[in-house]
Amino acid sequence: MRHPSRAADDVRMRGFAQRHTVEAALGWLDAQLQPLDAEDVPVRRAAGRVLATSVVSTVDVPGFDRATMDGYALIAESTEGASAYNRLLLTVIGDSMPGCPFEGSVSAGHAVRVMTGAPMPRGANAVLPAEWVEAESNCINALAAVSPEKNVGRRGEDILSGATLLEPGRVLRPQDLGVLSSIGQNCVRTVRRPRVRLVVTGNELLPSGSRPQGFHIADANGPMLAALIERDGGVVDFPGLVRDDSGAILEALEAYADVIVVTGGSSVGIEDLAPMLVAQLGELAVHGIAMRPSSPTGLGRIGHSLVFLLPGNPVSALCAYDFFAGRAIRAMGGRSKCWPYRTVRGALTRKISSPVGRLDYARVRLVEGQVEPLAIAGASVLSSTTRADGFVIVCDDSEGFAAGAEVEVWLYD
Amino acid sequence: MRHPSRAADDVRMRGFAQRHTVEAALGWLDAQLQPLDAEDVPVRRAAGRVLATSVVSTVDVPGFDRATMDGYALIAESTEGASAYNRLLLTVIGDSMPGCPFEGSVSAGHAVRVMTGAPMPRGANAVLPAEWVEAESNCINALAAVSPEKNVGRRGEDILSGATLLEPGRVLRPQDLGVLSSIGQNCVRTVRRPRVRLVVTGNELLPSGSRPQGFHIADANGPMLAALIERDGGVVDFPGLVRDDSGAILEALEAYADVIVVTGGSSVGIEDLAPMLVAQLGELAVHGIAMRPSSPTGLGRIGHSLVFLLPGNPVSALCAYDFFAGRAIRAMGGRSKCWPYRTVRGALTRKISSPVGRLDYARVRLVEGQVEPLAIAGASVLSSTTRADGFVIVCDDSEGFAAGAEVEVWLYD
Repeated sequence: MRHPSRAADDVRMRGFAQRHTVEAALGWLDAQLQPLDAEDVPVRRAAGRVLATSVVSTVDVPGFDRATMDGYALIAESTEGASAYNRLLLTVIGDSMPGCPFEGSVSAGHAVRVMTGAPMPRGANAVLPAEWVEAESNCINALAAVSPEKNVGRRGEDILSGATLLEPGRVLRPQDLGVLSSIGQNCVRTVRRPRVRLVVTGNELLPSGSRPQGFHIADANGPMLAALIERDGGVVDFPGLVRDDSGAILEALEAYADVIVVTGGSSVGIEDLAPMLVAQLGELAVHGIAMRPSSPTGLGRIGHSLVFLLPGNPVSALCAYDFFAGRAIRAMGGRSKCWPYRTVRGALTRKISSPVGRLDYARVRLVEGQVEPLAIAGASVLSSTTRADGFVIVCDDSEGFAAGAEVEVWLYD
Repeated sequence: MRHPSRAADDVRMRGFAQRHTVEAALGWLDAQLQPLDAEDVPVRRAAGRVLATSVVSTVDVPGFDRATMDGYALIAESTEGASAYNRLLLTVIGDSMPGCPFEGSVSAGHAVRVMTGAPMPRGANAVLPAEWVEAESNCINALAAVSPEKNVGRRGEDILSGATLLEPGRVLRPQDLGVLSSIGQNCVRTVRRPRVRLVVTGNELLPSGSRPQGFHIADANGPMLAALIERDGGVVDFPGLVRDDSGAILEALEAYADVIVVTGGSSVGIEDLAPMLVAQLGELAVHGIAMRPSSPTGLGRIGHSLVFLLPGNPVSALCAYDFFAGRAIRAMGGRSKCWPYRTVRGALTRKISSPVGRLDYARVRLVEGQVEPLAIAGASVLSSTTRADGFVIVCDDSEGFAAGAEVEVWLYD
C-alpha cells in the first residue's frame, strides 16, 4: 500500500472552482498578442515567411529597354507594307543577345537579330518576330509589318524605382522571392519566428520512438505538438521528456522562449504541478475553461513568455493547442489568428448534443458530403482525430445540432 | 558590328512548326508519372510526408485499463446510494499514478486515488471523479454514485493490435505523428521526395542577391522555382547559374535527379540550346505548346529523368512550372496532381479575350468579391503575379469570358 507523500492539505483533490468561458480566455489571450520584432532572412529561405516592412524598389526592372520576342529589332517604318506577297529586304547588321547588347545603331532598312530579353539596339523601336521573317545569312525578308513599340518592353516596365511592391504582413509566395531577387535584394526583413519551448511531462512516458511497455506509454504529444508548432511558424525547442517533479518542471520552464507549451500535469490533481509553478513564477491568468475536451487548460505568463498548460490527453492537447497556443504562435509570427483549416458545410447524419455553458469540439467524418459525428468522445482516443476528417464546434450558448442540420466542418488536412 | 558565329543553317530562326495542345502535353506527361520508391523517415520529421504503405498497429493502446478522470478507483457498487445528503465513507488504501500503478487489490469500501491515465487497480471497476468527493487524509466521503465502467478506459480503447490506422497516400498530419508514436514507431515508410536538378541558364543573369547592373539582370527564376519545387515536396539541387553554352548546359543536365527543370534557352532562337541537347541526349517529346504565356515550353526525358524546359520569362516559368513540372513533382512524390491552390468564384469586371486553339493564363485581382483581370499580359512582368491574387484559365476551346461572367479563380496564397 502506498501512502500520500504530501501534506494533508495538498491531498484534497478539488474540481475547478469556476471555469472561464472560451471567449473570456481568448479575450485575455488576445490582449497579450503582438507581432515579434523583425529579422533579416535570405530571400532564398523566405518562402512562407511574413514581411515585417514594406518592400520598395530602388531600381527599375528591367533597367533598359528590351525585346520581348525572338526576332529582329528595327525601325517599325522599315516594315511598312510588308506581307507574304510584298517581302521587304533588310540588312542584318548584328546581334543583340541577353546580357550582350549590339553596340551600334540601327538605321532604316537595317535589322539586328535579337533574342527575348536582349537590350534593344539604339535607333530601333520595334521587334519583328522570327515567325514573320525569311532569314538569309546576312539579310532577311520581312513578311509582315510591325507598328512602333511592338514587342518592346520599356525600362521599368515590370518595376519602377520607388514603387512599393509588397506590404507588411504579406506571407511570401514563391513569385515574391522572384520579385525580391529581381530588384537586387539579398535578404528580406521578416517577422521573427516565435521560439517555443515544448515541455512534455509525465512519469508514464517513454520517448517517442520507444515501444510502449508495461504501464509506460510512448509520448504522442511531443511529435504532434512539434509538428503543429512548426505548421504555425514557430521554432520548436524540445529538451526531452520531463518528469512530474517540481525541480525538473521548474528547470524546463526556465527557457529563453516567446512561448512555453506544457503538456500533462495541467489539471488540479495532486501531481499537477505545472499550474502551481506558473502561478508562483509569474501569472496563471486562466485555469479551467468551459469546453470539452481540454477543460483543464491553463493560460499565463512567466516574464515575457506566454505559457500554455495543455492537458496530457492527446485529443485535449490538440484541441487546446489549436484554440489557444497555435493562435498565439501565429499572431506573434505576424500571421492570421484564424485556424489554418479549410471549411466545408454539410448536413449532420446524427445529432450532436452539448450542454449550454460549454463549448464542444466534436470530431466528424465526411461521408458522401454528409457530416457524421464520430461515436467516440474520449479525449484519450487520439486515433479519433486520424479517423476524423475534421471537427465541428458547438458554441457554449448552443445545445447542439439536430440530425440533418447544416454545420460548418473545419478540415484537418 | 558583330557577326553570326554559327553556320548559316543555324542562323535561320523559325517559329515552332506545330504547337501541342495543353491536353496532349499533359497526356504525354501523365503517362510518364509513377510514385517514386519508399524511404524511412523519423516520425518527428514526417509531417506533410506521404505514406508509402499502410500503418498497422502491433500493440494495444493503451496496453492496460486506465482511469480517464482524476479521482478514486473503486468498486462501483461501493458508491450505491451516495449523495450529498447520504455521504458514504471509503478508506483510501493507496495511489495509482501514471506509470506507477497501485500494487494491491481493491475490495468493497476501499478506494485508490488515481490520476487521469493511471492504471486501474485490480478489483476496481469505476472511477469516482475528484469533484464528487470530500477527501480526508486516509478516507473519502463519496457524494455521488458511479456505475460500473464509468471513467475507465479499457485496454485497446484507442488502438487495437492488428488495426490498420493509416492508408498509403496519406499526407501525414500532426496528429498522425502522435498516433505513430503511440504505437511505438520510430520511423515511417514514406514516398521518397523527388530530387530536382534546377538548371537556370542565361548569360545576362547575375546570381540572386546581386544588384542588377547595366544589361545584366538578377536571377528571379532560381529562387522562385526553388520555392515552388519545395512547396510541391521536391528536394532542390541548384548548382548555380549556367552560361548559354553547350558544354556548360550539358554538364548541368548530367545530374542524378528524378526531374530536371531548365529555365531559359528553351525557345527556337539561335542561343536556345537546351531543346537541342535534350533531343540529342534523350527524347524531346513535346516542344511548343498552344498556351499563353509559356508557349516555348518543352517536355522530355534524359535516361530516367523527366526534363522540363521552361521559358526564361518569369511569368512563363511560373505558369509552365505549375502546369507541367509541379504536376510531375507532386505525382512522383505520391501527392495529388492537382494544383495546391484554393479556388473561389466571382464575376469578371471586364472581359477576357482569348483565341480558340490557345489556352490562356490570365492573372486577376479580387476586388470586393469581383474578379478584375490585370491589364498587363506581358510574360516578362513578374510583378503582375505579386499584384495578382490568382489566375483564371481560359481553355483552348473558348474565346474567353464576357464582363460579368462568373469564373473560377485559382488563388496564389
